[in-house]
Amino acid sequence: MTSITMPDTAVHFQPLGRKTEPKKGGTLLDLASQAGVSIESICGSVGKCGKCKVIVRSGTSSLSPLTGSERRLVDPRVPGMRLACQARIVSKGRVVVEVPEDSQRGHHRLLAAGTERKVRLRPAVRKTVLKIPPATLKDLRADDDRLMDLLERKIRARPVIADGVHKDLPQALRKRSWTTTVTTFRDCEIIRVEPGDTSDQLYGVAVDIGTTKVVAYLLDLGSGDIVGTESMPNPQIPYGEDLMSRITFTTKEPDGLERLREAVVGGINSLISKLCGAKGIAPEEVLEVMVVGNTAMHHIFFGIPANHLAAAPYAPAVRTSLSVSPAHVGLDMYPFGKVSSLPNIAGFVGADAVADLIASGLYDDRDTGMMIDIGTNTEIIAGNKDRLVSCSCASGPAFEGAHIKFGMRASTGAIERVWIEGGTKEVVVRTIDDAAPKGICGSGIVDAVSEMFGTGILDASGKILVNDGNKGTRKGAGGLPEFVLVEGREAAGGEDIVVTQHDVQEIQLAKAAIFTGVSILMRRLGLKCADIKRIYAAGAFGTYVDATSAIAIGMYPDVPVQRIRFIGNAAGSGARMSLRSTEMRDLAERLSRQVEYVELAAERDFQNEFAQAMFLPHRDVSRFVNVRVSRIDG
Amino acid sequence: MTSITMPDTAVHFQPLGRKTEPKKGGTLLDLASQAGVSIESICGSVGKCGKCKVIVRSGTSSLSPLTGSERRLVDPRVPGMRLACQARIVSKGRVVVEVPEDSQRGHHRLLAAGTERKVRLRPAVRKTVLKIPPATLKDLRADDDRLMDLLERKIRARPVIADGVHKDLPQALRKRSWTTTVTTFRDCEIIRVEPGDTSDQLYGVAVDIGTTKVVAYLLDLGSGDIVGTESMPNPQIPYGEDLMSRITFTTKEPDGLERLREAVVGGINSLISKLCGAKGIAPEEVLEVMVVGNTAMHHIFFGIPANHLAAAPYAPAVRTSLSVSPAHVGLDMYPFGKVSSLPNIAGFVGADAVADLIASGLYDDRDTGMMIDIGTNTEIIAGNKDRLVSCSCASGPAFEGAHIKFGMRASTGAIERVWIEGGTKEVVVRTIDDAAPKGICGSGIVDAVSEMFGTGILDASGKILVNDGNKGTRKGAGGLPEFVLVEGREAAGGEDIVVTQHDVQEIQLAKAAIFTGVSILMRRLGLKCADIKRIYAAGAFGTYVDATSAIAIGMYPDVPVQRIRFIGNAAGSGARMSLRSTEMRDLAERLSRQVEYVELAAERDFQNEFAQAMFLPHRDVSRFVNVRVSRIDG
Repeated sequence: MTSITMPDTAVHFQPLGRKTEPKKGGTLLDLASQAGVSIESICGSVGKCGKCKVIVRSGTSSLSPLTGSERRLVDPRVPGMRLACQARIVSKGRVVVEVPEDSQRGHHRLLAAGTERKVRLRPAVRKTVLKIPPATLKDLRADDDRLMDLLERKIRARPVIADGVHKDLPQALRKRSWTTTVTTFRDCEIIRVEPGDTSDQLYGVAVDIGTTKVVAYLLDLGSGDIVGTESMPNPQIPYGEDLMSRITFTTKEPDGLERLREAVVGGINSLISKLCGAKGIAPEEVLEVMVVGNTAMHHIFFGIPANHLAAAPYAPAVRTSLSVSPAHVGLDMYPFGKVSSLPNIAGFVGADAVADLIASGLYDDRDTGMMIDIGTNTEIIAGNKDRLVSCSCASGPAFEGAHIKFGMRASTGAIERVWIEGGTKEVVVRTIDDAAPKGICGSGIVDAVSEMFGTGILDASGKILVNDGNKGTRKGAGGLPEFVLVEGREAAGGEDIVVTQHDVQEIQLAKAAIFTGVSILMRRLGLKCADIKRIYAAGAFGTYVDATSAIAIGMYPDVPVQRIRFIGNAAGSGARMSLRSTEMRDLAERLSRQVEYVELAAERDFQNEFAQAMFLPHRDVSRFVNVRVSRIDG
Repeated sequence: MTSITMPDTAVHFQPLGRKTEPKKGGTLLDLASQAGVSIESICGSVGKCGKCKVIVRSGTSSLSPLTGSERRLVDPRVPGMRLACQARIVSKGRVVVEVPEDSQRGHHRLLAAGTERKVRLRPAVRKTVLKIPPATLKDLRADDDRLMDLLERKIRARPVIADGVHKDLPQALRKRSWTTTVTTFRDCEIIRVEPGDTSDQLYGVAVDIGTTKVVAYLLDLGSGDIVGTESMPNPQIPYGEDLMSRITFTTKEPDGLERLREAVVGGINSLISKLCGAKGIAPEEVLEVMVVGNTAMHHIFFGIPANHLAAAPYAPAVRTSLSVSPAHVGLDMYPFGKVSSLPNIAGFVGADAVADLIASGLYDDRDTGMMIDIGTNTEIIAGNKDRLVSCSCASGPAFEGAHIKFGMRASTGAIERVWIEGGTKEVVVRTIDDAAPKGICGSGIVDAVSEMFGTGILDASGKILVNDGNKGTRKGAGGLPEFVLVEGREAAGGEDIVVTQHDVQEIQLAKAAIFTGVSILMRRLGLKCADIKRIYAAGAFGTYVDATSAIAIGMYPDVPVQRIRFIGNAAGSGARMSLRSTEMRDLAERLSRQVEYVELAAERDFQNEFAQAMFLPHRDVSRFVNVRVSRIDG
C-alpha cells in the first residue's frame, strides 16, 4: 500500500503544522486535541464561552453548518471563522484550520521570551584574525602601525585603539607567532587585541531592566543564538515599588541615586555571572552588554539624575543611545568592552519602548498599526513607516494585581480566565496550573469585568447591579456591591473570591488611561478604528490578557481580534536584535528622534477623553460597534 | 637744541635693540658693555680666544681695519665678521652690530626654557558658552538634544558626550538659568558641562619627561601664556640611572613596569599640584596634560611594556599620538579631561624628538638643515620640508659629566668655558656663577678637548702629547697622560683639576657616535656640509656647548657657526605648542609617519664611519676644512 496516490483526507492545523486523520462526527476541538494542538475552551465545549475560535482556510464543505452558538459568537466579518467545539466533520476531505494566537492555549508561555524578527547578523563587536608581518630590521614599524596597516586593508577602516589596550600590543603580536585577534567596536575602536585566533569566542548580553523584573540573555554573537536566559526581581524594589517612589528615593535619600544604581548593577552582575557559569565561560568574555529599560531605569543605571523626570515637562537628561566603559557603570565583564543602551524618546517613553518598536516592526509597516506595552506606565506608539506618534499613560499597577481585593501576580492558583453564562450567570474560571483558585491576576480581572459587563452584571458606568437576576451579586463590606467569582468551598483560602465595586473602578481607571492615550494618538493621526490594521501587544500582561475581553471593556480599540498580535517581552527582543545588529541600533537612534511624542497631560481635552473612556466600553458607543453591550447566551 | 635733525651716530646692537653713543677709540666690546649688552670674552680682550665674534651689518667705514688676530680667528666667508675686542670706532657714524647667539654671554640661561615658534591658538580643549532654550511642554527635547542642537549650530559639529559627563547635564543646564559652558575635545567629544559661563578658566599642562629631569608648564589656554613652570629630577632615577637599566627593571623586577609608572606619575602629580597651588586654581581645572618624552619614558608612563625597545629591531609598541582618560594613568586633574602624548617615530626617536622637530620648524624649511638633541641618546633629524630622515645615536652620558674624572653636572663651580693660549699653553677657564672651580661640566670638557687639540696638546688620534712644549701635560695615575686645567691652589677642592687620557677618549666616543649619525643621515640625503644651512641645537647641553668647539672636535658638521641656532628645551616647547594648537599635533602625527628612520646599527658601514669619526676632528680632514688642525695664536 502506498500513500502517494491516496487523496489527502487529513485535518491540518496551522500555523503549528500538525495533522490528523478525522473521525466522522468529531469536532475540530477533539481533532485538535488528537493532533496535539491545545485550543482554548472554558465552557466545557458547549459553544458558550467563544474562546475556541478557529478559521477554516479550506475544506469548509467537509464541515457541519454553523450552529446557533456560532451565529451568536463568531465575527461575521471573518470568512471561515468557526467555534472548534461546534464544527464537526461530516464528510472526508482535506481541511485546513488556522488556530489564531489568541485561541492557542498556552501560547502565552511561549511568547513570554518575546517574538523576534530576523536581523542581518552584524554585531557592534567584531573579531578579525590577522597574520601580521613580523618586525625586522627591514620593517621597523611600531606594533600599532603594523597591526593597523593590515587591519585597515581588511576592514577598510582605521579604528583608534581604546585606552588600556595599547599595553597588550607587544604580547598579542608576538605570543602566537604574529597571529593576533583584534576586536573592534563599530569598526571605529579597537577594544581588544589577543594572541592567536580567538574568533570562536564572541559573547554579548542583552538586559531588560523592568521596574519589577530584570531579565538577561547571553548571546553567542558569532551565531546570533541565545545561549542562556536568567531573570530576577529588580533589586531596587525594596527602595520603592514603583517608578515614582524610586525617583523620589534618589532625591530624598543621601546617595539615593548611587544606592539604586548599585542595587541594579549588582543584580545584573549576578545574572551575568550565572549566565557565564552555565555556559562555562568567564564574564571577561562578555564584550558588550546592551541595556534597555524605561527612561528612569535607564538614567538610574547610568548614574544620571532622574529627578527631572518627576516634574513637568518631564524632560529626560539623555535621549541618545550610549556606549560607555564597563568601569564607568561597574559591570563585571571584559573591562575594555562596552555597556550600551538604546535611545529614549521621552521621560516616560524610554529605551524599552524603542526596543518594543523595533521588535514589532511597526516602523516598517505600510499599514497603520499600534504598539501597546502595558505596565504601570503603558507606552503606546502608533502609525506606520511614514509617521509615528507616541505617548505614555499612567495606567497604574491594577493589571499586576495591585489595588484589587483578591488581586495577585500571575502565579499558580491565580484565576487567569473567566467566563460567565449569560442566562444563569454561572461562572467558569481557569487558574494557572489548574490549581485551586487563590486570587485573580491581571488577565483574570479583565475577563471578569468583560464578562460581568457582557452579561448585564455591570452597567455601562461600571456599577455592579445587585439583584436576583444577577446571581452572585450581593452587598459586601460597607454595603458596597460585589460579585462572587468563586465560592469559599472551592477556593484555596476557604473564602469567597469576589470582584468588588472598587476593583471594577480600578480597572476602569486603568483601561481609561490606556484608551485615552490610544484615542489621542488616533486623533493625532486622523485614524478611525477600522484604519488600525495591526495591534502589537507587548509585555507580559499584553500577552496574557484576552484580546476579546480587552476590546470588550474598551481598553484596546475596537478592531477584529485577528489584528492583535502578541509579541511577548518585546523589550528583551529589541535589546537582543540591537545586540546582534548595528543596523537595528542605528535605526533605533533615528526612530527615537523621529517618533513624535505627545504629552497627554498637555492635551486640551485630555480630561474629557478620560471621562468618556471610564465607561464600558466607552461613553461614545459608536466607537465600539462590535461590542455587544449586553449578551444573552443560550 | 633739537635732536630731530641730528644725524644718527649711535652704535646699535642687534637683535637686542640697544644703542649707545660711541667714544672715539672705544672697542665694540666696551661699547656693548656700555649699552648693557654682554658679549662673551675669555682671553681678557686681547684678541686671542675668538669668543667675541660679531657681525657688522652697516657702518664698517667707521671702524678700524682688521687686526692680525681677526685675520686668524674670523671666518672669511662671513662678510662683516669682527672680533668685538679688536674693532674700534675711528669716525662718527651709524654702526649696526649683530651679536650672534653664540657670542651673547648668558644667552644659555634664557634659552633653557626653549624657544617658541608662534602658533595659531587653537587648543584641543575648547569652551563654548550656550544660552539654551528652557524645557517646556511645548519643547520637550531631552537635555542632551537641547544642548547638542544648539552646540551643533555654533561649532558645526555634533560631538559625543564622554562617559560620565551625562550625569552633569540636568544640573549644568538648570543651575544658572540655562546658561551652560560646554568643554569639547577636538570638537568631537564633550568632556565637561558646567552651569554658567566658565570660559575664563581653561588650563592645560605640558610635561617633558626627560630621563633625568621632568619639567611641567602650566598654560592658560585662553591666552596661550605660560603661567607657571616646575621641574624635578625624574623620580625613576633610583630604579636605574639610564634608560636601559630602567627597561631592564621593568622586565626583571616584579611589577617593575608599574613601579616605574607610578613613580613618574606621582612626580607629575606633585608638579601639577605645585603649579596649580601657585596659580590659585584646583588641579581639577587642568583639562588636558600633554606629555612628551623618549619612547621608553612614553611607554612606561602609559603602562605599555617597554622590553621590546631593548632588543633588535627595537620596535615601539605605539607610534600614534594618544589621548586617554586621566583615570587610566592616574593623573590628578579634571577626571574626564585628557592625557595626551605626541607620537613616537621609532624605539629611540620618541615623542620628545617629534616635539623638537616641531619647535625647530625644520619640517617647514625650504633649506636643508638638521635638528640635533644631545643626550645620553642623541636624536638627529635631517632634511627639509620635502624629506626628513632621523636616527638615534648612543652618545652616552659623558656630556652630562659621567665617566669623566672631574666631570660634574652644570651647577655652581663647574668649568663651563675653557680657553688655552696657543703659545704659552696658559689656561683660562670660566665657571658657573664665577665660583672657585669644582669640576668640569659638559660644555667645559668639549671646550677643553677642542682647545687641547687646537693648541697641539692632543694629536688627531686624541693622544695627549706629554712634552715640555705642552705646559700642563704630565703622566698621571698609572702612568697615563693627563693635562692640568686648574691647579689645586685655585680649585675649590684643593686638588688639581685635570683632563685625563681616558676623559678625552670618552669625549671621542661620544662625539664619534653623534657624528656617525650626522654622517649617515647626510649620505642618505646626499648632502655635503655646505648644504646644511641650519643646525638646530636642542636640549640643555646643545644650548650650553660652544658651537665652535663642537665643530672643532668633529661633533657637529663643519658649517659656519652662524648657522647653528640654539633652541633650548625644544621638547618642552614642542609640547607647549601642541597643547596650544591642534594643527601642531596633527602635523606631529603626519611627521611621525613621514620622517624616515635609519637604524644605524643596521647600516653596512656603521663601524667604519664610527672608527673614522673617532679622530679629531675626523680621519677625513677634507670634511672639516675650516677647522685648523693646529693653531698658533699671538
